[in-house]
Amino acid sequence: MEKLFSAVWYIEPITKDFYQQMTINRIIYSGRTKYQEVQIIDTPTFGRCLILDGRLQSSELDEFVYHEALVHPAMITHPNPEKVLILGGGEGATLREVLSHKTVKEGVMIDIDEELVNLCKKYLPKMGKKALRDERARVIFEDGLKFVKETNEKFDVIIMDLPEPLEGTPAEPLYKKDFFEILNSKLTDDGILSSQIGTTCIGAYDLFTTLTNTVKKAFPIARPYEANIPSFGGSWGFIIASKKYDPLRIPEREIIRRIRERGLKTRFYDHKTHKAILTLPKFLRNAIRREKRTL
Amino acid sequence: MEKLFSAVWYIEPITKDFYQQMTINRIIYSGRTKYQEVQIIDTPTFGRCLILDGRLQSSELDEFVYHEALVHPAMITHPNPEKVLILGGGEGATLREVLSHKTVKEGVMIDIDEELVNLCKKYLPKMGKKALRDERARVIFEDGLKFVKETNEKFDVIIMDLPEPLEGTPAEPLYKKDFFEILNSKLTDDGILSSQIGTTCIGAYDLFTTLTNTVKKAFPIARPYEANIPSFGGSWGFIIASKKYDPLRIPEREIIRRIRERGLKTRFYDHKTHKAILTLPKFLRNAIRREKRTL
Amino acid sequence: MEKLFSAVWYIEPITKDFYQQMTINRIIYSGRTKYQEVQIIDTPTFGRCLILDGRLQSSELDEFVYHEALVHPAMITHPNPEKVLILGGGEGATLREVLSHKTVKEGVMIDIDEELVNLCKKYLPKMGKKALRDERARVIFEDGLKFVKETNEKFDVIIMDLPEPLEGTPAEPLYKKDFFEILNSKLTDDGILSSQIGTTCIGAYDLFTTLTNTVKKAFPIARPYEANIPSFGGSWGFIIASKKYDPLRIPEREIIRRIRERGLKTRFYDHKTHKAILTLPKFLRNAIRREKRTL
Amino acid sequence: MEKLFSAVWYIEPITKDFYQQMTINRIIYSGRTKYQEVQIIDTPTFGRCLILDGRLQSSELDEFVYHEALVHPAMITHPNPEKVLILGGGEGATLREVLSHKTVKEGVMIDIDEELVNLCKKYLPKMGKKALRDERARVIFEDGLKFVKETNEKFDVIIMDLPEPLEGTPAEPLYKKDFFEILNSKLTDDGILSSQIGTTCIGAYDLFTTLTNTVKKAFPIARPYEANIPSFGGSWGFIIASKKYDPLRIPEREIIRRIRERGLKTRFYDHKTHKAILTLPKFLRNAIRREKRTL
Repeated sequence: MEKLFSAVWYIEPITKDFYQQMTINRIIYSGRTKYQEVQIIDTPTFGRCLILDGRLQSSELDEFVYHEALVHPAMITHPNPEKVLILGGGEGATLREVLSHKTVKEGVMIDIDEELVNLCKKYLPKMGKKALRDERARVIFEDGLKFVKETNEKFDVIIMDLPEPLEGTPAEPLYKKDFFEILNSKLTDDGILSSQIGTTCIGAYDLFTTLTNTVKKAFPIARPYEANIPSFGGSWGFIIASKKYDPLRIPEREIIRRIRERGLKTRFYDHKTHKAILTLPKFLRNAIRREKRTL
Repeated sequence: MEKLFSAVWYIEPITKDFYQQMTINRIIYSGRTKYQEVQIIDTPTFGRCLILDGRLQSSELDEFVYHEALVHPAMITHPNPEKVLILGGGEGATLREVLSHKTVKEGVMIDIDEELVNLCKKYLPKMGKKALRDERARVIFEDGLKFVKETNEKFDVIIMDLPEPLEGTPAEPLYKKDFFEILNSKLTDDGILSSQIGTTCIGAYDLFTTLTNTVKKAFPIARPYEANIPSFGGSWGFIIASKKYDPLRIPEREIIRRIRERGLKTRFYDHKTHKAILTLPKFLRNAIRREKRTL
Repeated sequence: MEKLFSAVWYIEPITKDFYQQMTINRIIYSGRTKYQEVQIIDTPTFGRCLILDGRLQSSELDEFVYHEALVHPAMITHPNPEKVLILGGGEGATLREVLSHKTVKEGVMIDIDEELVNLCKKYLPKMGKKALRDERARVIFEDGLKFVKETNEKFDVIIMDLPEPLEGTPAEPLYKKDFFEILNSKLTDDGILSSQIGTTCIGAYDLFTTLTNTVKKAFPIARPYEANIPSFGGSWGFIIASKKYDPLRIPEREIIRRIRERGLKTRFYDHKTHKAILTLPKFLRNAIRREKRTL
Repeated sequence: MEKLFSAVWYIEPITKDFYQQMTINRIIYSGRTKYQEVQIIDTPTFGRCLILDGRLQSSELDEFVYHEALVHPAMITHPNPEKVLILGGGEGATLREVLSHKTVKEGVMIDIDEELVNLCKKYLPKMGKKALRDERARVIFEDGLKFVKETNEKFDVIIMDLPEPLEGTPAEPLYKKDFFEILNSKLTDDGILSSQIGTTCIGAYDLFTTLTNTVKKAFPIARPYEANIPSFGGSWGFIIASKKYDPLRIPEREIIRRIRERGLKTRFYDHKTHKAILTLPKFLRNAIRREKRTL
């Protein structure tokens, strides 16, 4: 008799017809907070992974790509980001990247789920534990929608680090045109916003183009871009929405200077990456041009 | 966007073209002893499961079927089993069933893998912990092949509770005709042996018929039988090999009497089950009749 | 670089936490009739398989077990079955087994789905094509519920060969106590009914025990039994409901005589199998005894 | 009872611990040529897909990205490619992209597997059938290694469109430094080569960096780049090796001019894509710089 191999797998639907599966060493945590199901698993391929409501959100292997791609293009486009708001950002890695810019005096992180943040501190300490304790950090456990509507503060940069707008989830109302307009009003006159906006994989980029179109209605400058996040199943989309500065017009030497002056230590992002990721392939540019839908 | 469900799965090949997969709550243990890979997982379908070298060996849900089917037909066929040898039997459940017969004065369990037995005591205590501490139990950590060849003891019943004879595993030489003949010589004159001998699923019962034929060469009476073990992927085969008593000729009322006198508490086995499981469907009887191979 | 194997798989949920998967050689047909989704696939493990609404219904490898188990215990229990009604039975294999009894003068098969029957004739000709053309066969394409309610005919044997009563499917109302009572009234005074009633796998036999209890309310004699159908994921339950004859009380020699006289050629069923499959393991007998639910 | 969904899946290992799986509508072809296993499947996610030896090679959805990325950066970098050699290229799509440059007078395609090319013409006609019949095409069924060693011809551009160098496959010796040196000698003095060189996904880019380093030893200019190919499991690596022209130094307006003059109709590639895909993210540039291995 031949020997066959059994294994323990994490299987995640990317779409209903396309799944990815990875072997697991260990299930580190599995439970429910007040707001969502949380799983933290350890895998040979991606290291420790955070899974919320059955969607992989961060892996040790490639979270640096996601978080640098989400944070730095917007932050570097702003000449002097001092006050930054993060919506979501549970494991603290977005806060970590934000605070790595020396210009930042205050990083306000609004996450609805305190239990989740504590689980991440315990089980994913490399990702954001240190940042969550930084004296420039202000971490508030509250509904982001509520906070934004009620606050009188203005921010230089706002970063949305939220799950995709699945039906019935708390994230759903945060990706609407109305909400982007409210966010616009909470930015300083030269303020910038960035957000993840879904996969850019061919055949599956409807959310990406729809959200790009939505953001365009609420901001004078809207620049979609993408980065490869293998643990998310491929290329992933982001957007910079800006009131004044255009990330495509900032000179390369200025990016180099800002990175140096702010003391950024990066693995994914630099002046070359900045330009390259903001240049989408032709078919995506065309798909965005043709897109009429908004959320 | 529609919500899709990800999950953690244990996937096991039954054959190279037929797998079964079950969701997992928790990986309780995953490691290697000196002899084998061991995984203990907790599943919604089967409760805690013991997996050795990538093959599910015991589940909380249905181990009672496997262990009662392995032990009781042979034990009940013998009028007075006092001394019983178990080869293998890591988690102690076979010993538990053997010791549940009040006639038994000594249950000798030979398992090569002490670490495994300790892991089972710790993580699967319901299965055999109590039996392993019974004063009638003698647990020896040694190679079963070596023990059997060297011992001068004789046994009323020998029960083989070993993994399938995969190439290159320690179990491989223990399923050969030569070894069954040695086992025969270690039984008392009215001794009985039982063993699991592989799946009886249609299209996959080659090992079952081959081992049945092999055992027939070494014993005057050989009675194959089967029971449903869902966690093993379906119906599973066993055999009773006997020097004197025929399990098919023991009267129903005698089975009832022995069960009562010995104080057996069973969930799967009784006089009705005894007769039914020893009656294979016609195609299996024919396949056994046609079988010429031996191991 | 190591070589890894990809494959095409059919993956079917047995329950939401337990799936089975088999490799596929070929998808022979995939489409929808007016009533259901139909797939016919060719697999190395089971040969050609018929899948209705995502549930495997018949495989070349083991359909003989299913159809012999469904038909013969009831037919043999009846001393002279001349007129037989089949509800469902799309691929014709139940009709084939019914007509194999020489006593039968008329086999009436009521299937709602003519397209399905034609697809089976074309792609699964071995299963029932010949029977569907037999001059004793009367095949009617109509809703079984309607036919039974309206007919004035009486039958010696009625065989239900329907999918499981999933919510919202046409099969759902056919497994209710009320309908079993109507069926009772369409049987002759010594008539017998048989039906599949779901898996008997441990931990998943709720439908089996509930339907057994339901049938008991509608018939004086109700005998549940089981057979291993690997392509269905393990042991499968059936029931005989009878107005006069008890399948447990028919002498072995009488079964042998009837099989011979009626010219049955079987692979699974004979007098030994008859007795064995009608003897459930102890835990199933207990589960049936404790069952209070009905449908 | 709840309804659960079964489906037919194509499951492909990307690595031994990371698989992707997609549902299948139809298996269009499954067989073996003299050289390799061939499967052509139709999927909801990617349309028709060509699978060789269990690895997806081309899908209708995204083959345009792969083939445009493989062909155009090298072809456009050359000011006047007239004679082009393709090694491999079974389905004809690489030839199609090559011949779409009006400058090309002769496209020589060397594929070892005539049966495969015929299967592709029959079942994947959109991909390359027209190109394979173009009068500028010269299709030779021969071992690429042998052809290259023996030919006296020189080429402006050579494009390697071969499977990955798995152990023991015909492709293995074609990715060695020695062979790249031979290819160099078959290029004209300003000749250019391009090839796919494996995944660039984080944690799995060893082959990509090793081959980049290997090509650097054989050519004065070596420019690795990447593109997203969802059906390959994420971002995929390529390289341009050049004797004279550097793809990074060709002015944007010149790219625009050449695309226009040569009549290219592209969906993925243009002057913007050219620059962006040749700019790897920082961590990949660093991994290449640190790489010491060669093949």
